[in-house]
Amino acid sequence: MQSEFEFISRLKEKFGLGRVGDDCAVLPSNAETDLVVTADVLVENVDFRLDWTLPEWLGHKALAVSLSDVAAMGAEPLWAMISIAIPPNLWDEGFLERFYNGWSGLATEFGVELIGGDISRIDGPLVIDSIAGGSVGRGKAVLRSGARPGDSIYVSGSLGGAAGGLKLLEDGHRPTEDLPLPVTRQLQPQPQVALGKSLGQQRLATAMIDISDGFSSDIAHLCEAGGVGAQVSAAALPIDSDLSRYFAPDECLELALNGGEDFELLFTSGKHDLEALPGHRITRVGQITSTTGHVEIVRDGHTVPLEPRGYQHF
Amino acid sequence: MQSEFEFISRLKEKFGLGRVGDDCAVLPSNAETDLVVTADVLVENVDFRLDWTLPEWLGHKALAVSLSDVAAMGAEPLWAMISIAIPPNLWDEGFLERFYNGWSGLATEFGVELIGGDISRIDGPLVIDSIAGGSVGRGKAVLRSGARPGDSIYVSGSLGGAAGGLKLLEDGHRPTEDLPLPVTRQLQPQPQVALGKSLGQQRLATAMIDISDGFSSDIAHLCEAGGVGAQVSAAALPIDSDLSRYFAPDECLELALNGGEDFELLFTSGKHDLEALPGHRITRVGQITSTTGHVEIVRDGHTVPLEPRGYQHF
Repeated sequence: MQSEFEFISRLKEKFGLGRVGDDCAVLPSNAETDLVVTADVLVENVDFRLDWTLPEWLGHKALAVSLSDVAAMGAEPLWAMISIAIPPNLWDEGFLERFYNGWSGLATEFGVELIGGDISRIDGPLVIDSIAGGSVGRGKAVLRSGARPGDSIYVSGSLGGAAGGLKLLEDGHRPTEDLPLPVTRQLQPQPQVALGKSLGQQRLATAMIDISDGFSSDIAHLCEAGGVGAQVSAAALPIDSDLSRYFAPDECLELALNGGEDFELLFTSGKHDLEALPGHRITRVGQITSTTGHVEIVRDGHTVPLEPRGYQHF
Repeated sequence: MQSEFEFISRLKEKFGLGRVGDDCAVLPSNAETDLVVTADVLVENVDFRLDWTLPEWLGHKALAVSLSDVAAMGAEPLWAMISIAIPPNLWDEGFLERFYNGWSGLATEFGVELIGGDISRIDGPLVIDSIAGGSVGRGKAVLRSGARPGDSIYVSGSLGGAAGGLKLLEDGHRPTEDLPLPVTRQLQPQPQVALGKSLGQQRLATAMIDISDGFSSDIAHLCEAGGVGAQVSAAALPIDSDLSRYFAPDECLELALNGGEDFELLFTSGKHDLEALPGHRITRVGQITSTTGHVEIVRDGHTVPLEPRGYQHF
């Protein structure tokens, strides 16, 4: 059976869809700026569980995933829409008002305006489609495809926390308790809006993607889009420091490599000193190579292929 | 319990959402044009039934409902996104490719480009969120709120066909048969793209909305937004001529007044001779009054209130 990535790739080819496949689509707006737009669908029991979160946190996360996509284009988010298919029991319980309270908290933080959306009833799981739009300097959107051999590879923040949080939730932690930090990273991710915008404005990044599927999958997407390869250093990966309290070292590395939903930025640059960029935590984790589509990882002196093992819906 | 309209109205007030509540949100784009955007969510077994349609027709309809919203702003559609939550069995059957074939047919007709979207798995009904964007002359978007006392009220095309088609489907007609025309109106609606754009460009309409919930509800939305009232003539309503083969005269009027999903345009104008607009079927059905929020219908010499009895999800 084909994966969702193969399906989208085939669709692009068949219908000549040049703008599909990056974190956002880029459209001309005016002489100075381009418009970026993105949509992210979240499904109960697939992308989230209602008994593992609060309506406010889900509202926060629904917006966060889309703001992360806007950030990954080097753009500034400006507006958003929310479409919801909601089961009658949640409607009756006043779920939506709490959801929008959480949504609105994050929107206010980044000056994002709710401009529309839609509501339908569903006899089934809750479904949320989060749409965001933003602006970026004309021709300055940072695409996935721009990495060049010799570029340094960077990630923001730390990796594996969100996936570790998911494991803790699976192990029985609940949002009513005093929450382990990785659980917060899973349920209330912080999109890297300021960093993304800054990298775009200063034209520091040659390629960028947000880490939603997982580092191993997202570096593969980036290499595939750019027709390049990558060599990553396991020792350099900024593994979430809270994970070691709950997981063995090998598990921590596995979470950092293959766990999704950290919503950090993964980007490449011809500059090799970006760890020093003020105001942001940035780690250099490797470099781009010319071996098309081949991603390898150096660990304890051995170099092995890094297979994409992040999340897939199909 | 509050209706969805009451909920959205309260949300607008609470969060100061000035752009929410029209067919599309309107955002400044450049010195000459504004951007309009809309989202419409369609849920299996609520908004459509898979055994009553074909994947291609559902793709067509998903885009049609959003293009209708763009048309209702007097704007020209340019791009669209599709987010889908799809159950595994439909994924395995190749549903999506057929859906996109239908989607693409309508998109090509109006020069609309697919620029993005998202796919997730769902263990439940199929959910589609259709997003469309378009452009309209700066400050020329036709809002719901612009109707003034004395304006003529017009509708495009004919009314009640889509709701009649739904009744025929409920009575057992299936898309494999030689289809009665009302069923086609239900399953493959034609958005009034050319008329909407033309009314916008020529600044002929003072207010506009597409008839998606049903005439009685949509005229109420328009009057509420404009702080006006309306008097409608039952005899003037352009009832779908195919309905009389299947339904009694009273039923036909009921379908035309309260049946949803015709996706015709309902608009007002200070000009009283727009029935003569070349290339379009337009019918004058009444006029705007100054009695705020009061809509009445004249039928057989009697004037009675016209209650909004169109579709509501909640």
